[in-house]
Amino acid sequence: MLDKIDLHPSMDMALYRSELKFFENRLAELQQTIKDLSIPVLIVFEGWSASGKGTLISKVLHPLDPRQFNVYTLGKAPEEWVMRPFLWPYWTRTPSKGRIAIFDKSWHRIILPVYSHRLNLSPKAKTEFFYDVRAFERQLRDDGVLIIKFFLHVSKEMQQERFRELEKNPGTAWRVDKHDWEQNKNYDSYLKDFNEMINQTNYNGSRWYVIEADDSKYAAVKIFGIIIERIEQHIKHTAQPQTQLLQTEPPSSIIPAANVLKAVDLKKNLKDKEYKERIENLQARISILGFMLYSARKSVVIVYEGWDAAGKGGNIKRLTERLDPRAYEVIPIGAPSSEELGHHYLWRFMNKMPKDGHMAIFDRSWYGRVMVERVERLTPAYRWQKAYQEINDMERHLVNHGSVIFKFWLHIDKDEQLARFEARKKDPVKYYKITDDDWRNREKWDQYEKAIDEMLLKTDTDYAPWNIIESNDKKYARIKVLDIVVNELERLLS
Amino acid sequence: MLDKIDLHPSMDMALYRSELKFFENRLAELQQTIKDLSIPVLIVFEGWSASGKGTLISKVLHPLDPRQFNVYTLGKAPEEWVMRPFLWPYWTRTPSKGRIAIFDKSWHRIILPVYSHRLNLSPKAKTEFFYDVRAFERQLRDDGVLIIKFFLHVSKEMQQERFRELEKNPGTAWRVDKHDWEQNKNYDSYLKDFNEMINQTNYNGSRWYVIEADDSKYAAVKIFGIIIERIEQHIKHTAQPQTQLLQTEPPSSIIPAANVLKAVDLKKNLKDKEYKERIENLQARISILGFMLYSARKSVVIVYEGWDAAGKGGNIKRLTERLDPRAYEVIPIGAPSSEELGHHYLWRFMNKMPKDGHMAIFDRSWYGRVMVERVERLTPAYRWQKAYQEINDMERHLVNHGSVIFKFWLHIDKDEQLARFEARKKDPVKYYKITDDDWRNREKWDQYEKAIDEMLLKTDTDYAPWNIIESNDKKYARIKVLDIVVNELERLLS
Repeated sequence: MLDKIDLHPSMDMALYRSELKFFENRLAELQQTIKDLSIPVLIVFEGWSASGKGTLISKVLHPLDPRQFNVYTLGKAPEEWVMRPFLWPYWTRTPSKGRIAIFDKSWHRIILPVYSHRLNLSPKAKTEFFYDVRAFERQLRDDGVLIIKFFLHVSKEMQQERFRELEKNPGTAWRVDKHDWEQNKNYDSYLKDFNEMINQTNYNGSRWYVIEADDSKYAAVKIFGIIIERIEQHIKHTAQPQTQLLQTEPPSSIIPAANVLKAVDLKKNLKDKEYKERIENLQARISILGFMLYSARKSVVIVYEGWDAAGKGGNIKRLTERLDPRAYEVIPIGAPSSEELGHHYLWRFMNKMPKDGHMAIFDRSWYGRVMVERVERLTPAYRWQKAYQEINDMERHLVNHGSVIFKFWLHIDKDEQLARFEARKKDPVKYYKITDDDWRNREKWDQYEKAIDEMLLKTDTDYAPWNIIESNDKKYARIKVLDIVVNELERLLS
Repeated sequence: MLDKIDLHPSMDMALYRSELKFFENRLAELQQTIKDLSIPVLIVFEGWSASGKGTLISKVLHPLDPRQFNVYTLGKAPEEWVMRPFLWPYWTRTPSKGRIAIFDKSWHRIILPVYSHRLNLSPKAKTEFFYDVRAFERQLRDDGVLIIKFFLHVSKEMQQERFRELEKNPGTAWRVDKHDWEQNKNYDSYLKDFNEMINQTNYNGSRWYVIEADDSKYAAVKIFGIIIERIEQHIKHTAQPQTQLLQTEPPSSIIPAANVLKAVDLKKNLKDKEYKERIENLQARISILGFMLYSARKSVVIVYEGWDAAGKGGNIKRLTERLDPRAYEVIPIGAPSSEELGHHYLWRFMNKMPKDGHMAIFDRSWYGRVMVERVERLTPAYRWQKAYQEINDMERHLVNHGSVIFKFWLHIDKDEQLARFEARKKDPVKYYKITDDDWRNREKWDQYEKAIDEMLLKTDTDYAPWNIIESNDKKYARIKVLDIVVNELERLLS
């Protein structure tokens, strides 16, 4: 793609001034509309060293209200990032509704050989990388984010000239280093890499705009033109009535007739003596595994979902009580905050993903999207229906990074729940645990059951399977969870 | 302090078991009360290597609901921290209301010579360090945070024995490194340093508990006893009626009769031609200063406050439009989110403080505490009255770190505001800028004026002075701000 570009278009100064003025005014107006319509905009700048990213980003910002955008420089990955899934720094910086985020360098360059910690990606790792990138961009687009990607292209000669120019001035000389010169010397080989990067991530709905940047005036006008056109298109699309999308239940035919939950045998139980013996053994082993995970730099994500009063809290306690407290974090998930509501619903979970060597235990999780948000109609059907795929993709991304995921559904039946609710009401220490919400949810048991069945079916993947934990007997449930975690981790770390 | 401790108390096993059980049950109950009363609890563990911090923290956590605490290991400072004021990592991890945060190592150790990047603190720097620490702890306490600080003390012999024990086991050998052995070899010199650390940060309201940790059972029981006692005291204190504190205005006698605002000459203005010349010159200079700040690794904090329609947005725009967009961030401050309300009110601002080499521009700021929160009675008087000192201390901490602070009050008179409101109403592009809130605030002009006068008086410090910007003429205001910033930074960087 890059090798076929004519790098020498240039522009008349008078024409430039008038076009620029016109574009600037239009972009300032559009920024207001973006805010009013709560559209998040993400603009990516990639390109050669000295292709003028800084200057061109400044030009784009010039007409904008500085309170409504963020610029992130994302070229060099600090250790903090390397210890997390590679999309993490980008996920956490995605714009909230109505704001513009400008990324100076982005998730694409991780495949470049210059990106030291990803040197020598295997072909399989490369395939997964592109899968993850496509999934990420699709998730954002489906959430209404407008993504515009620019590649600033300069010729070898122009790059050389600019380095020399920068070096001449003592105020800017430090901006050129040996890596820059290396790029210039090996221009053709870098060209090949950039070409691959662009070709592999250039697809319908997320295309690259290659900008001939030898002439910065030409480049500026072209960039403005594209941004304005894309925003206008997006607004037109957003403004269309989407009534058919707002129904909260899909046609029943597409819901699979699953009866996963009804088939669960809830009579399983454990005697006190066996429980005591086994829990001591398992807790001793998980305590050692905690240290082994840390030294192997492996991260673990554990998801607890289950009916109200299914015993999640007690189960988590037995899992963690012998673990080194510095190695794990329990993350209780409640209703999203106002800030979290301004972002993609996976944003707040990505924010919390553990560093390598650590364990994150989610007490409730991203699965709320296809349970409570569906049943209580907090999210329109066309959004939560997409969540199955989105969740699978996010979990796949974690596994591609090297994380291990455990997902537990703590299952009890309706009678057992009632008995526990009643017991809680009477217990002076536990009465706080039971709220009106619990009783209301209980009335919708059948709707929840249907949603859970579909969830268990659609998000049960090879790389992140569901485990159904029979929890009418709490002791049985605790041992089963510990058993699964301990055995799988011992297998992986041996 | 440390050298006078008898390190050999020990404990009978049967007594230990019964005491521990009793304490665990009590702490579990108290955790619920903490949650109900929204009390944030911060427990600090400092001590020797191999003094058993990990084990003892685990013991404390044992009875607790894992969804309600966080453990942070804060010993080693990554680059990310070093580039920010030294309290930043601790500030950002303070517990929210009703939660318990446990710090494994803390802000105290920054004065230890082993803390590499603080080697050779000058006496003045040390004094400032202790000032900052005291101010930090006081700010948290005043906000209702219960702080409990433990120092785990072991003898030289016991430490040696534990290192050997750890080294024997291949699963734990990696936990002992050369720094640990160095500490053991130079035990006496470390003892002196720890002693100083404790003595200097041991004061009324924030005392250290030194725990004899040669015997871990003894240590566990002592720690539990102290935590329970302190929480019980705190609850008793919190439960006291504080009616006298809830009044929203202090007795008028303590309000100084300041007339700062009334004395401002709002007739100052600039002709178009002079404006154009000066702004071009100043913007060219600030653009260079941006790069100089970056290479000098200096951070800048700019605060914009002012009346509604005083022209903050346009003023910020002129300040930033020639700056490299990667070097600054504009942070618009609105009503706090639910998460932010769960923390000390300075928490959300500390979270946003710039890294070295960067500039953060706050469009409204922490001064909302003593303006809108005071006038609209969003915060009780006994809290906002403390804010003057809290704000001065926070700004002093930034300056101690090496940051530069500029504070601007953009001042207009009531007639000018009305004219601007009316003009906005008619302008199809700007009408959105005017809301019912603006009109309501305007009705309270006199109350605001009183609050602002007091604020300007009480938070005008040597290290972070206020600049009043006469803004009836926008051009004059923009030049004045740029002029102050450019000249001061040129002076500092030359």
